[in-house]
Amino acid sequence: MGQGTDSMSKRGRVYIIGAGPGDPGLMTVKGTKCLAEADVVIYDHLINPGILHHARETARLVYAGKEGGKHTLSQEEINARLVSEAQQGHVVARLKGGDPFIFGRGGEEAEVLAREGIPFEIVPGVTSAIAVASYAGIPLTHRRHTATLAFVTGHEDPLKGQSEIDWKALAGIGTLVFLMGVRNLSRIAAGLIAQGKKPETPAALIRWGTTANQETLVGTLENIADLAEAAGFAPPAILVVGGVVGLRKELNWFETRP
Amino acid sequence: MGQGTDSMSKRGRVYIIGAGPGDPGLMTVKGTKCLAEADVVIYDHLINPGILHHARETARLVYAGKEGGKHTLSQEEINARLVSEAQQGHVVARLKGGDPFIFGRGGEEAEVLAREGIPFEIVPGVTSAIAVASYAGIPLTHRRHTATLAFVTGHEDPLKGQSEIDWKALAGIGTLVFLMGVRNLSRIAAGLIAQGKKPETPAALIRWGTTANQETLVGTLENIADLAEAAGFAPPAILVVGGVVGLRKELNWFETRP
Repeated sequence: MGQGTDSMSKRGRVYIIGAGPGDPGLMTVKGTKCLAEADVVIYDHLINPGILHHARETARLVYAGKEGGKHTLSQEEINARLVSEAQQGHVVARLKGGDPFIFGRGGEEAEVLAREGIPFEIVPGVTSAIAVASYAGIPLTHRRHTATLAFVTGHEDPLKGQSEIDWKALAGIGTLVFLMGVRNLSRIAAGLIAQGKKPETPAALIRWGTTANQETLVGTLENIADLAEAAGFAPPAILVVGGVVGLRKELNWFETRP
Repeated sequence: MGQGTDSMSKRGRVYIIGAGPGDPGLMTVKGTKCLAEADVVIYDHLINPGILHHARETARLVYAGKEGGKHTLSQEEINARLVSEAQQGHVVARLKGGDPFIFGRGGEEAEVLAREGIPFEIVPGVTSAIAVASYAGIPLTHRRHTATLAFVTGHEDPLKGQSEIDWKALAGIGTLVFLMGVRNLSRIAAGLIAQGKKPETPAALIRWGTTANQETLVGTLENIADLAEAAGFAPPAILVVGGVVGLRKELNWFETRP
């Protein structure tokens, strides 16, 4: 361990980097620099290959996966790998989609590093929820429509008794964004309507946002689940609920490019 | 107008760009490219000079201001300027702090451009609320703490009858972030406690986030306003409320750098 500890004291460290929503241009300048410095890159599913090109040719690329619940490495294995690579004196780039601290488990990874005394930095990224909506022509906030905006993981089932989520509270927020919510779509919609959200509230589903394959489906809280089923609209997708969805009619700049 | 319209059909257009939270490294790669292409840059208050360096030497830099409510250009003047510059065939970079569609009035600017038939693109940025919290060692979401996160403009007074904000709903959300809330701090805290948020809920105020001048003040919902007054903690600052604030004890990586 002597040598490992020695070299770690000089340079072993971890950058927890947000890669942004998909469009490789939406990576930050600092993110590309940290990536170019890394000896090892541990990256998640859905990271655009255009982003990995910022890494050095000699860098080891490690795919951590996570595709529809199937993990190539478990979270515990990822944590252990981050620690052991840094302890060997390596600069590690931990590359995550969107922003690392928004439903990305970046907080848990940072906790492990802090406990092990490994230097780390957080490099925030463009949040997928915000950028994907922007590329669909939907500003998540707007003075005429709302002063509140909430993000929710879409994994929870609102009709289950033990939900950690306060659905009544969500129904009182102006704009709602559900990440990874497509599988629970009809239950999310029913839950919000049961708690007082109007059935005619505009709703949009967006998949492959910010990429050339972006697709958007627009309806209301009442019919969006049926529309998604009829269209075979598969995950991963985000769901936006609120009056701001109506602005897309005018602001749909990306899907209408020449 | 003939020539203007002609050249506009070739190139007059507007990039509405998010400059990120302050650290110039948190600008996106696409943002720097659009800036380097611009004939005119119309930028807001608090844009880091390190970001303006991406513009060409020959680009005209127009300060749109907005300092503590005082505007150098009114929103209507900004809108008119965006339209007229693009109609003269210029490439315009409209540079805003954070993300242009998160409480940045970017949606209103895009609406004006859409109505005038002027081509525009939205270049999302790193949201200040998320990045500032990250640099203060606070992940806004965390599995052990919350599955919901809300952003609120701090301009509204919760004790006013006509508030557009549903304070009861906010009290049911796991993590809350108030932007521009320092002036209303005691009322925001009182409003949330009155609606059922526990007085001992951790709360943090952060100013000059992501810059060398970053300062963070930590307390509870019950005492944060008094602490801020005692410390003379002036705006602009963001307020974070929720159990995740407690993670800062371990994760405060930026303010403790060597």
